[in-house]
Amino acid sequence: MNCSIARALDVIGEWWTLLVVREAFRGVRRFDAFVERLGIAPNILSARLKKLVRHGVLEARKYADHPERFEYRLTAKGRQLFPVIIALLVWGDRWYAEEGVPAVLMHDACGHVAAPRLSCGHCGEILDPRETHAVPGPGARDPAPSLIA
Amino acid sequence: MNCSIARALDVIGEWWTLLVVREAFRGVRRFDAFVERLGIAPNILSARLKKLVRHGVLEARKYADHPERFEYRLTAKGRQLFPVIIALLVWGDRWYAEEGVPAVLMHDACGHVAAPRLSCGHCGEILDPRETHAVPGPGARDPAPSLIA
Repeated sequence: MNCSIARALDVIGEWWTLLVVREAFRGVRRFDAFVERLGIAPNILSARLKKLVRHGVLEARKYADHPERFEYRLTAKGRQLFPVIIALLVWGDRWYAEEGVPAVLMHDACGHVAAPRLSCGHCGEILDPRETHAVPGPGARDPAPSLIA
Repeated sequence: MNCSIARALDVIGEWWTLLVVREAFRGVRRFDAFVERLGIAPNILSARLKKLVRHGVLEARKYADHPERFEYRLTAKGRQLFPVIIALLVWGDRWYAEEGVPAVLMHDACGHVAAPRLSCGHCGEILDPRETHAVPGPGARDPAPSLIA
């Protein structure tokens, strides 16, 4: 499918995959720690970690020889998933936190609650889906990509 | 799991589900149009649409009686998934568009390429994962939520 959203979901579209990435943002690096934090079955975790390493989202670094053990760290490509994770967080906070949000994201640079928003890189205003549309890019195959609105 | 990201993924974490939402943003409303645009099996589409209606992301509106036919439209809750879709788009464009991006998002309000970014709602600066951390919110159960860094 000639769509960057579909291609992104091919890599990170499974439920567990994005939770593994979330834990990596929280500083989790070791297999046992992922298992403990996520309550994920080891065989599923193993498959997800392998896929994320294969696609360059995580890198595996050996930290012990006997037995061989690896740590998993976000690559630059993995760190660029931050907006995806945060966009999911914001939506979940808005619609699935009846008892109050579990966690609040702080912005160290300004010292305030981050209250993340998606803004236009040109004018800085918040992006509203009704005020955007898509035009064909250099990689377009479809003659007329649909509106996003 | 006491985490807004996990709760969000519970609803929209399946690959097809977010592509259905993407098509809804593009103005697709009818069952046959979703099938045609996505190449999705009708039984899978039917299950995904039902789930999205049940969770209030889409609403079903009858548009024909004989036979009964429904249109599916984004609710306010569904439209608030825009940042998730766009964050996926940006990441896919960056890493999976070797032949050029399939589509470019324009910001009608300012007339320029949107170049979407995630910014701090307080200071307006781009949010960098290394400059944020999480603190327990009113709904926290875990005594110390991990850093997002």
